[in-house]
Amino acid sequence: MFTHTEKIRVRYGETDKMGYVYHGNYALYYEISRVELLRKLGIDYSKLEKEGIGLPVLDYNIKFIRPAYYDEIISVVVSVTQKPKVKITFNYECLNSENLLINTGNVTLVFIKLNNGKPIKCPDKISYLFENYIE
Amino acid sequence: MFTHTEKIRVRYGETDKMGYVYHGNYALYYEISRVELLRKLGIDYSKLEKEGIGLPVLDYNIKFIRPAYYDEIISVVVSVTQKPKVKITFNYECLNSENLLINTGNVTLVFIKLNNGKPIKCPDKISYLFENYIE
Amino acid sequence: MFTHTEKIRVRYGETDKMGYVYHGNYALYYEISRVELLRKLGIDYSKLEKEGIGLPVLDYNIKFIRPAYYDEIISVVVSVTQKPKVKITFNYECLNSENLLINTGNVTLVFIKLNNGKPIKCPDKISYLFENYIE
Amino acid sequence: MFTHTEKIRVRYGETDKMGYVYHGNYALYYEISRVELLRKLGIDYSKLEKEGIGLPVLDYNIKFIRPAYYDEIISVVVSVTQKPKVKITFNYECLNSENLLINTGNVTLVFIKLNNGKPIKCPDKISYLFENYIE
Repeated sequence: MFTHTEKIRVRYGETDKMGYVYHGNYALYYEISRVELLRKLGIDYSKLEKEGIGLPVLDYNIKFIRPAYYDEIISVVVSVTQKPKVKITFNYECLNSENLLINTGNVTLVFIKLNNGKPIKCPDKISYLFENYIE
Repeated sequence: MFTHTEKIRVRYGETDKMGYVYHGNYALYYEISRVELLRKLGIDYSKLEKEGIGLPVLDYNIKFIRPAYYDEIISVVVSVTQKPKVKITFNYECLNSENLLINTGNVTLVFIKLNNGKPIKCPDKISYLFENYIE
Repeated sequence: MFTHTEKIRVRYGETDKMGYVYHGNYALYYEISRVELLRKLGIDYSKLEKEGIGLPVLDYNIKFIRPAYYDEIISVVVSVTQKPKVKITFNYECLNSENLLINTGNVTLVFIKLNNGKPIKCPDKISYLFENYIE
Repeated sequence: MFTHTEKIRVRYGETDKMGYVYHGNYALYYEISRVELLRKLGIDYSKLEKEGIGLPVLDYNIKFIRPAYYDEIISVVVSVTQKPKVKITFNYECLNSENLLINTGNVTLVFIKLNNGKPIKCPDKISYLFENYIE
């Protein structure tokens, strides 16, 4: 398993009239957390796109346990437990400043060639980096 | 089953650098589509909040089949197949202008009292409105 | 002068914890209103981009008079009063459902070639369409 | 003058199909930068709201010089040069990772009582904190 915890401070514009973080905005929190997990492993996602490889989202699931509030620093714990093949799955736990669970989720993305949108196998240089962490 | 189709034109600011609608923005498309389904049935969600009842999201799941693009008019087909109790589930199919499936999903919300955040049974005047459509 | 009024219903995710439309979201309302003004005149902005011409924002100014609220239908009155040259300026008045002024603003965009980002003169086929409306 | 520099990494969902940060998203960057300036001075904006005081935006102006891109770390330099009275103005310069100017702007907010929306004088405990920095 390879894990990263990303600390994110809630912005005013990310709240809604109920006073909660708008549920749709967790997509952004999840996104930046997995990009930082990849960076920690040595993968620069923006470079990957410059090399012609993209990672659009295939599947996105989230269960909300309690709301998060403005100006809170929340912790997004993201992990990869399976070696990426054509797809890669990220698992999430989101905690508030009192370490209580806000939500859990998972996001599956697919490796594609950006010039034709076709799925491809995860490049060796990437799957290789996961090898020390995942059996 | 009670169904509504909402037509939504993709805004420039809703796309991302891949040229697709950013996956997180479907939360907004799904939101406005279920609010219009409720309005069609005679329920004004904003009035419900003024009466002290809220409907935060509990569970959000979406599977992406193909991307949507800037300026496209997409059709969000939303339906309710089960009478709401403490929770209400909306099922979604999102189609592009060529009637091809963009994504499918479902969102479950919970009725709460806004002053204490506690779950409550769906008010009778609302569950009643679904009765003619759902067995 | 060439004018268009766009009716926009406020989405839940566009409000903030103050219960107002988050001020940053008017950029989206202004954007879709000017795109519809152009469409009314016979200009399809998405086609323009396919032909290699873009219109990034150069200057954006907005004065807020009163807030807008969830589920309100607001009217964005957008007008062009000067023939576009390298730049085009859109003037805005945003009204709420009681016809009271929410905000006023103006946005200036610049015609560019998308392949090199360089400013260009407004294409004749576009400036021509404004001729009947602007002296 | 009181100044703060906030470093912000551009999120994927904040870009648009032109590959730039969508112009409307700078409202969020400006927002979090002024909140951090206030925090540095000893003012916790979220506490201010709990005490019944809000700071909605009155005036927002931004001039774009060059675009910012995905995954860039941009520096938002925000400063206050005049003692706040009923209003407070923040001035901005946004720089990219090569220290080139992305945009400049200013945002004026007004102190209000949240229970009635009426403007009030900046609380003494706040204006006092600016005194050592602004003549």
